[in-house]
Amino acid sequence: MVTLKDIAAEAGVSITTVSNVVHNRASRVSPELVVKIRSIIEREHYVPSMTARTLVNDESYIIGVITHMTPQNVGSTMSDPFLGTFVEGIELRTREEGYFLMIRSVEDAQALETLRRSWKLSGVILTGVFADDFFEGIRNLGIPFVLIDSYLDDPDICNIGLEDEKGGYLATKHLLEHGHRVIAFASPSIREGGVVEKRLNGYKKALGEYGISFDPSLVFTQEIFVEEGKRLGHKLAAKPEITGIFASADILAAGIMTGLREKGVQVPRDKSIVGFDDNYLCQLTNPGLTTIHQDAEQKGFLAVDMLLSQLRHETVANHSIILPVSLIERESVCNLNR
Amino acid sequence: MVTLKDIAAEAGVSITTVSNVVHNRASRVSPELVVKIRSIIEREHYVPSMTARTLVNDESYIIGVITHMTPQNVGSTMSDPFLGTFVEGIELRTREEGYFLMIRSVEDAQALETLRRSWKLSGVILTGVFADDFFEGIRNLGIPFVLIDSYLDDPDICNIGLEDEKGGYLATKHLLEHGHRVIAFASPSIREGGVVEKRLNGYKKALGEYGISFDPSLVFTQEIFVEEGKRLGHKLAAKPEITGIFASADILAAGIMTGLREKGVQVPRDKSIVGFDDNYLCQLTNPGLTTIHQDAEQKGFLAVDMLLSQLRHETVANHSIILPVSLIERESVCNLNR
Repeated sequence: MVTLKDIAAEAGVSITTVSNVVHNRASRVSPELVVKIRSIIEREHYVPSMTARTLVNDESYIIGVITHMTPQNVGSTMSDPFLGTFVEGIELRTREEGYFLMIRSVEDAQALETLRRSWKLSGVILTGVFADDFFEGIRNLGIPFVLIDSYLDDPDICNIGLEDEKGGYLATKHLLEHGHRVIAFASPSIREGGVVEKRLNGYKKALGEYGISFDPSLVFTQEIFVEEGKRLGHKLAAKPEITGIFASADILAAGIMTGLREKGVQVPRDKSIVGFDDNYLCQLTNPGLTTIHQDAEQKGFLAVDMLLSQLRHETVANHSIILPVSLIERESVCNLNR
Repeated sequence: MVTLKDIAAEAGVSITTVSNVVHNRASRVSPELVVKIRSIIEREHYVPSMTARTLVNDESYIIGVITHMTPQNVGSTMSDPFLGTFVEGIELRTREEGYFLMIRSVEDAQALETLRRSWKLSGVILTGVFADDFFEGIRNLGIPFVLIDSYLDDPDICNIGLEDEKGGYLATKHLLEHGHRVIAFASPSIREGGVVEKRLNGYKKALGEYGISFDPSLVFTQEIFVEEGKRLGHKLAAKPEITGIFASADILAAGIMTGLREKGVQVPRDKSIVGFDDNYLCQLTNPGLTTIHQDAEQKGFLAVDMLLSQLRHETVANHSIILPVSLIERESVCNLNR
């Protein structure tokens, strides 16, 4: 078996230089050397041993994408288009940067700690809704991690989030501007300080501007599965006083639309609805779903970049990146003013 | 650091027995011993080193899920609900069985070979459409692999597929029975002997039974992205002679429906459509999409089980599992006979 050392000796360069070329960090090496080293690698059929590399560097160059396992959902919930597109972005960027992607659903912080230690993970990206004690448990994980859409009150923890409150505000204001006054808020369970609470705050803020006081009976929490969304649609169909709905995820909004339709309630004629995410579902519902836009693939890229900055001990200027949102108007909101 | 050997010595058992408990193969060990070993592991905070394990066993217990990278799509196309649900099934089952899941998009067989060697992958699951030379390149991969929806003319290669021809037949026959005579076939590119060709054969067979000769100008190939589906919908909207459409993937069917709607063509009044997959999109389109059912999560489970049978050198009774399909009727087909 040809080793890194053999290649380095033949090319007359350091092992580090060969390693840089092998592991896609060629930008640090002159183009001529890259060509020379690559041709030797090819001729000798050299393949780096990740096991040896893990032993030498005490890290495996594996980035874990960790989702939360719950009793209702033991899988990795990858079928939500938001998460699928997000993971696509992560896979692409980790590959470009010479890292590898492991996907794992964990039930608690202990399971993540075991995974980290047994694999010497380089870093982890955490997505989904975790309980408070989970976040306590990972504070001292010992490797870089990036949280997605989880807001912790700790400036040292890296997080990529959205203008969630603004998103909730824009969605609700859009319904108010179109004459809706009784507006339901549909979302998965609301964790204190979490992403859904921020969207709810935006909803409350918009209502406040129109002098409408917050009515807790208009908040409907529901897991983000199609069946659950449909059931919520059935429930909302029986409440004619509600003319507007803001659903905090497109997949939930789409499920609600189907549930409403099954009960003979037409969108937008009878009820208007605004989603959140702007994934491709918004174009596949009929009518098209007015929603709050976010860029899931870009979120995946940024998560990897933020992790790599920490891994390379670069100064991370900002531990919290908040991505912008905007309202995308389609056909799911009816103007009651006309 | 506590080692496997220390735990084994304290429990008075072999290293293999401890290893079986650590790596979720507890069924091979008596319940009393499992409890005893687990309590020692917990007390000593033992975490297995996967690097050491990889060195000892010459495999990493990582299963690679490999998708095909193309110039049009450099990502892992995880956002298709079919693939997302399939990967969910794989993640769940690999975890239950003590394995780990790595996701990677590769451009050719050489890239897969490098990945296999550098990580000492235990096995790989290949999904998506690969070129013929790719399949040639992986015949001697040297580790177990399972192909998904790729039919190779080699009884030794493990494959999990569907009754694809029957699916195409049922979909087309359903349209014929409802009075449709000019039926478009929409699919991604057709590879000889591949999954799409089989569905096309079913389409031809059904037409034949109705005495209709195959018309190649009714075959529309299109990548499975929402934008491409919409564009195909625009194209089909301009062809009033076509009253029925069979699309070989739900996500393509849903995109076509949106494209038709944008041109003022109503489903099913003006055109009827049948999809393939029966993923949740079928419930979110309006009207609901009549489609051919397959179980994506089950496919993921079976892929892992088939791989593990090979890894454990169990006799694999059948190298080719063909899962059943059935027609699920919703509201996207209009009866022209009435």
